[in-house]
Amino acid sequence: MQNEFEFINNLKHRFNLNKIGDDCAVLPKNSTHDLIISTDLIVEDIDFRRSWMIPKMLGQKALAVSLSDIAAMGGNPVSSMLSIGIPKDIWQTNFVDEFYEGYLKLAKENDVELVGGDVSKTSDKIIIDSIILGEVKRNKAVMRSTANVGDLIFVTGELGGANAGLKLLEQGVGFNTNNKTWQNDLILKQLSPCHRVDEGQIISKIVTSMIDISDGLSTDLNHICRQSAVGAKIYSNNIPINKNITKLTENINKQLEFALNGGEDYELLFTVNPTNINNLPYICIGEITDKNGLVEIEINGKTELLNSKGFQHF
Amino acid sequence: MQNEFEFINNLKHRFNLNKIGDDCAVLPKNSTHDLIISTDLIVEDIDFRRSWMIPKMLGQKALAVSLSDIAAMGGNPVSSMLSIGIPKDIWQTNFVDEFYEGYLKLAKENDVELVGGDVSKTSDKIIIDSIILGEVKRNKAVMRSTANVGDLIFVTGELGGANAGLKLLEQGVGFNTNNKTWQNDLILKQLSPCHRVDEGQIISKIVTSMIDISDGLSTDLNHICRQSAVGAKIYSNNIPINKNITKLTENINKQLEFALNGGEDYELLFTVNPTNINNLPYICIGEITDKNGLVEIEINGKTELLNSKGFQHF
Repeated sequence: MQNEFEFINNLKHRFNLNKIGDDCAVLPKNSTHDLIISTDLIVEDIDFRRSWMIPKMLGQKALAVSLSDIAAMGGNPVSSMLSIGIPKDIWQTNFVDEFYEGYLKLAKENDVELVGGDVSKTSDKIIIDSIILGEVKRNKAVMRSTANVGDLIFVTGELGGANAGLKLLEQGVGFNTNNKTWQNDLILKQLSPCHRVDEGQIISKIVTSMIDISDGLSTDLNHICRQSAVGAKIYSNNIPINKNITKLTENINKQLEFALNGGEDYELLFTVNPTNINNLPYICIGEITDKNGLVEIEINGKTELLNSKGFQHF
Repeated sequence: MQNEFEFINNLKHRFNLNKIGDDCAVLPKNSTHDLIISTDLIVEDIDFRRSWMIPKMLGQKALAVSLSDIAAMGGNPVSSMLSIGIPKDIWQTNFVDEFYEGYLKLAKENDVELVGGDVSKTSDKIIIDSIILGEVKRNKAVMRSTANVGDLIFVTGELGGANAGLKLLEQGVGFNTNNKTWQNDLILKQLSPCHRVDEGQIISKIVTSMIDISDGLSTDLNHICRQSAVGAKIYSNNIPINKNITKLTENINKQLEFALNGGEDYELLFTVNPTNINNLPYICIGEITDKNGLVEIEINGKTELLNSKGFQHF
């Protein structure tokens, strides 16, 4: 059975769909700017559980994951649309009102205007399709496919927290707004993810390729390498593991596992030519190599293959 | 309980979302054109049943409903995106491949390029969010909100067929590719709807307002009147009822019911100033009046109120 990445890749080549395969599609807009657009489908009991969070947080997350797609192109978010499918019993509650309040609060903070969408009924699960439109300077969108051999590889922040938070939620640890605990901090990484739109715009001036870490570092670095026809080598000692994960598990391999394969951190993963890195305030985790499609990791002086083990639906 | 139209209207006014409420949102693109964009959410067992049609037909319908949104603005379709949620057991079949084949066949016929999307898993139902982008000449998008008192009201084709086809499917009458029967013709109206992109572009030069009939004539005419702050009067004798409906029922009131309140015909409903109608090859069904928000129908010489009785989810 093919997974969704293989399916999309096959579809792209079979039907010659050249604009498919990055965080956003890039379309011509005007003489100064390109349009960028993405869509993220979020399904109840697959991507979230209703009992885990209040509707406002879900609304904010629905937009945050889309803002992250814009960030990964070095773009500026402008407009958005929202398709939601709602079971009748949920429609009769305040859920939808509160969901949109959360969504529109984050939209306002980021100067994003909700311009359309659709509302449908579903049998029993909530589904959300979050569509975002933004812009980048003409021909300046940062792609996944343009990393060069010799580039250094960076991430914008700590990894693994969102997945560790997910594990806690699955274990029944609830979110408590009033608590300042390490558990709460991890759960917030899952329920209320960051987006790096401002950082993405700044670093877009020097990066050679970029992706947001939505599926997990191992999977997303493999995306960059496959699409750029290069390899990569990263160093486990350099990987910024979320500090709170050390409280969840003392096993160093398990800690690393969260950072390598946990999805939904929405930090940016990007490559830069070494001549352009002066004072870059981010963490260098490795370099791009000429081993086409091969992603390696050095752990305790030993080099291993780093396969895509991040999130996949199928 | 508010229905989805009331919800969207409340949201629009509460959060000052001025671009919401037409078939497409209109966004500035460049010095000569505006961008138009819409999204249509289609949910299994709410909007279709898997047993009713082959996956290719579903793929074609997913795009056709979006093309119809572009048609209603007088626009030209350009690009599209597709978010699909699929249960694991369906993912393991040829369903998705065949669905995209149907979608991409119609896309090719209409010079639409699929540029992105998302794939997710669902627990047990297929869901599809069909997103389309198009363009219109700058400031020339045809809105629902610009009908004028004295305009004549037209439709591009026969009404009620898609809803009659739905009734047949619900009664267990299946679609048979080899049969040339009136039942098959009606079912095809439901499963393989038309879109009026070419017609929409031609008539956009003279119309004052336009909408596609997706929810039903009564509902969609009420949308035009409410958003244009006008009234309307239509004449039952002028309404083009799908010919095959007379074979489904001899009851004239029931025939009219299909044409007034049946959704998914995807014909265009539009208004034109009487001075501009020379040789217009479409059916005039009535006129716009100054009775703000009041939609009337004359049946056998008696004038009645025509309330929105088309499709609604909630």
